Amino acid sequence: MISRYFPILTWSRNYTRDTFVNDAVAAVIVTIMLIPQSLAYALLAGLPPEVGLYASIAPLLLYTLFGTSMTLAVGPVAVASLMTTAAIGNLVAQGTPEYLGAAILLALLSGLMLLTMGLARLGFMANFLSHPVISGFITASGLIIALSQLKHILGVSASGHNLVELIQDIGAQVSNINGPTFVIGATTLAFLYWVRGNLKPLLVRIGLSEKLAGSLAKTGPVLAVIVTTSVVWIFSLEAQGVAIVGHIPSGLPTPTLPEFDASLWKQLALPALLISVVGYVETVSVAQTLAAKRRQRIDPDQELIALGAANIGSSISGGFPVTGGFSRSVVNHDAGAQTPAAGAYTAIAIALATVFLTPLLHYLPKATLAATIMVAVLSLVDLGAIKKIWTYSKSDFSAMLATILVTLGFGVELGIATGVSLSLMLYLYRTSRPHHAIVGQVPGTEHFRNVLRHDVVLTRGVLSVRIDESLYFPNARFLEDTINDEVAKDPSLKHVVLMCSAVNYIDASALESLEMIDQRLQDNGLKLHLSEVKGPVMDRLQKSHFLSDLSGEIFLHQYEATCRLNPVKPPPD
Amino acid sequence: MISRYFPILTWSRNYTRDTFVNDAVAAVIVTIMLIPQSLAYALLAGLPPEVGLYASIAPLLLYTLFGTSMTLAVGPVAVASLMTTAAIGNLVAQGTPEYLGAAILLALLSGLMLLTMGLARLGFMANFLSHPVISGFITASGLIIALSQLKHILGVSASGHNLVELIQDIGAQVSNINGPTFVIGATTLAFLYWVRGNLKPLLVRIGLSEKLAGSLAKTGPVLAVIVTTSVVWIFSLEAQGVAIVGHIPSGLPTPTLPEFDASLWKQLALPALLISVVGYVETVSVAQTLAAKRRQRIDPDQELIALGAANIGSSISGGFPVTGGFSRSVVNHDAGAQTPAAGAYTAIAIALATVFLTPLLHYLPKATLAATIMVAVLSLVDLGAIKKIWTYSKSDFSAMLATILVTLGFGVELGIATGVSLSLMLYLYRTSRPHHAIVGQVPGTEHFRNVLRHDVVLTRGVLSVRIDESLYFPNARFLEDTINDEVAKDPSLKHVVLMCSAVNYIDASALESLEMIDQRLQDNGLKLHLSEVKGPVMDRLQKSHFLSDLSGEIFLHQYEATCRLNPVKPPPD
Repeated sequence: MISRYFPILTWSRNYTRDTFVNDAVAAVIVTIMLIPQSLAYALLAGLPPEVGLYASIAPLLLYTLFGTSMTLAVGPVAVASLMTTAAIGNLVAQGTPEYLGAAILLALLSGLMLLTMGLARLGFMANFLSHPVISGFITASGLIIALSQLKHILGVSASGHNLVELIQDIGAQVSNINGPTFVIGATTLAFLYWVRGNLKPLLVRIGLSEKLAGSLAKTGPVLAVIVTTSVVWIFSLEAQGVAIVGHIPSGLPTPTLPEFDASLWKQLALPALLISVVGYVETVSVAQTLAAKRRQRIDPDQELIALGAANIGSSISGGFPVTGGFSRSVVNHDAGAQTPAAGAYTAIAIALATVFLTPLLHYLPKATLAATIMVAVLSLVDLGAIKKIWTYSKSDFSAMLATILVTLGFGVELGIATGVSLSLMLYLYRTSRPHHAIVGQVPGTEHFRNVLRHDVVLTRGVLSVRIDESLYFPNARFLEDTINDEVAKDPSLKHVVLMCSAVNYIDASALESLEMIDQRLQDNGLKLHLSEVKGPVMDRLQKSHFLSDLSGEIFLHQYEATCRLNPVKPPPD
Repeated sequence: MISRYFPILTWSRNYTRDTFVNDAVAAVIVTIMLIPQSLAYALLAGLPPEVGLYASIAPLLLYTLFGTSMTLAVGPVAVASLMTTAAIGNLVAQGTPEYLGAAILLALLSGLMLLTMGLARLGFMANFLSHPVISGFITASGLIIALSQLKHILGVSASGHNLVELIQDIGAQVSNINGPTFVIGATTLAFLYWVRGNLKPLLVRIGLSEKLAGSLAKTGPVLAVIVTTSVVWIFSLEAQGVAIVGHIPSGLPTPTLPEFDASLWKQLALPALLISVVGYVETVSVAQTLAAKRRQRIDPDQELIALGAANIGSSISGGFPVTGGFSRSVVNHDAGAQTPAAGAYTAIAIALATVFLTPLLHYLPKATLAATIMVAVLSLVDLGAIKKIWTYSKSDFSAMLATILVTLGFGVELGIATGVSLSLMLYLYRTSRPHHAIVGQVPGTEHFRNVLRHDVVLTRGVLSVRIDESLYFPNARFLEDTINDEVAKDPSLKHVVLMCSAVNYIDASALESLEMIDQRLQDNGLKLHLSEVKGPVMDRLQKSHFLSDLSGEIFLHQYEATCRLNPVKPPPD
């Protein structure tokens, strides 16, 4: 029982020396990648750089205790950072202690919410975010994030949380571009793009293994950090207006709890919930994808608990909201991490870096970090997916498009809310006017299919209708109309068979409609029969008077119905 | 084309002398019933009594032009009157010209909304109000209305729009009960209850026809009005504190348009929408039930237009929101109305009454009207339906219960909103964790059923799973888990067949899941097949890469799949 909430008790039992070596190697590689990312995402969230490092220590240790994914790497990520700025940017001024306090509180609230949802086993709620909505949201966020970083590359100041605001702000600042900053930013950007596309094949060609080449290619940002920091330091470019990270306090954060401020808690509740849900969905998707590759399984409800603990830990140690990161987890996985212990080792390495390495980051130009973010998030913009979904389903596409447009125009929170509501409404609308088919027997089989699509045999005097949806209130009246219309077409009918193979549920409204239909058919001298009624539906019907009042019969399958109702052929047995 | 919007052009072509006589007789009976009802519902809405009469003239004439039901009788009804008080009671003080103005505006807004929805053919939206929600709403409204009328029976003053407020208010006033009022009220109440249950059988026993007895029994309220008015007049009971209707201005209303007041329009927009939807649902249910009895059909979208026109007419002639009334329409139907012209004749009769009869109503005690309302609405409280729905479906029951409780506790608008959202959420939750079954062949047939419910034959090495739901984002992950779990149980499997007879739609998220499932099965050396894929689903799949990438095949029916995949038996042909 206790091991359900502490998966570490299970996997640590088989922890060997080999596992340790694998985990440690992965931890080193992830650490190298995580340092610039932590700084960059803190910058994106409008926070001091060291906060990114703080958010990469305690959360990782806690995930090691509670997480069920063997390879997920938690920490600051782009989307959650963007959502953090969006949530608190309008409440308090950036750069103030209140701003930092609000970010810390946001992590706490988000953590408490995730923990509660996990204990209540609400992991299924994440399923209501459809792939097109997530994909649209990520694409739109990627664009906003990339644009929000442009100011650092250009060396101008601008703000704004949606596309229009950002474009206006940056447009107004074009004349103030800082030359040296732009050179550093643009070069880094070009370098990182080159690395992403070309370094791995190059390394493979000179003889490195596929895996090693892949991992090395991920260290591009570290190389960029080292080179650009050195350049700024050597040429004293900070004097020429190149914005640098500056003084980062060495040493570990002191654990504290955010102060209680009722009105702030209230204002941050909704953003915290959205960050929680979005972060959770991202986390579970990544964890599940990676687990599947190794035939492992994760427990979605326990992941809520683990992510909740990680966020509470982040808050207490002065960090901001964290989730499972995509690229970071993939690197961890590819580098051979075997257990969540790799995360703990990463945390230790980051803690060491926080204590010893921060003075070296003094001259790190913000433009480099911005370029790192831009390359990372633009890789999330997936135009191929948009096209694919357009071809496959117009309603999925419209939910996706709405998510993208509302996210770009009105911000991330409204974007997600619109996407989810629209996709649910479109589904409900679809079920409110279901497809139906008149079915006949496929010759040579006992199978019945749509008379419009297949060459089938009909039985005289018998109308067999297959309704392709569960019968419930939004389509109950539609059902009545459909049967009415179909019956009106053929006055010689004696029997109507409702083939229920696609009916998974009949609610009280639809039951009344069925009673009404049966009544009308009876008044016209016809009988209503049902066929292929599923067990669970039948169980429910047996609790009502419908079966005893029904004019016709219930047939196990459609073929039986046709045999028995056919006035010409005798029944088969 | 034009006759679609003016159904009168169609039915008036066959208008004969016989039809006229039938319509005229029905109109007389409905008028007798409508006069006390109009006054009573105006009282319920907190309006001067003549407003009830005004709302029974123009709306009926307009419905004659636009309506598609041959027997529906529109006019003031209990629920819409209650909703009117609830909507404007908190905005302006009752009894002021502003209160009347707001009610008139409410009718206009509601009319414009109904008209717009009709032109946009949004009639289907009413389907989203399920029977249990409507039934729960009507029951709760009936209780509130009955309780709100108690003050008139007791002769005390009290107000309040929900159960708690009303009970508190009335409780505080018990010591102020007016004796004569209470005697009149209680006697009328008892009399009307007796009429409702016993008059018709009595009249039948003394030799009247079933139909005539039924219609006469409906005139009970008119008898009560005549007797109690006379009693008050003869004994001058108004001097002893019996509240009377008092002076009713004779003559017809002067057509006017409500003044434009942006803030009031805004405040009334939501209530107007709710009155529109609820009124429309009531109208269409009544119209459809009555039409079905005569094998006639109504056009739900045109009914929106007709009801919209009726409400605009009501507003312009100084009336308040109207809808199709249940008991009134039944009387109209039973009395033999043949066309909507009966409504026009009723309107003329009411207009005459407004001009000539109003002085006679001066001494009509309000307690009599209150008793009329109480008896009418308490007959709508349907405890049997609550029990029936409890037995049949717990989720329908919870939507109904929530509607009742929220309506009683927080008012009609929130009650309906809660009921609709809860019933949709429960349905979505249900579809997010679908039922599934391992299926096998029913011996002697080509039919496949659940192995847990039927004695079926399984094929070695083949797992056939029937998922009982459309595959879409809320259950996409569930689908992956289900297949994973089922496959893990039997290592000897070679084939997985997904029997899609109950799958009516596969969205982009579920398609990705299917691709993922297929990939995992392939990695384990298994093949994924689909069977009984419906035409519309197949059309969509053909637009994707799924079919070409699929490891297995698509079978027309499950029996074919089993024959072809069975390593023992040769395929049938």
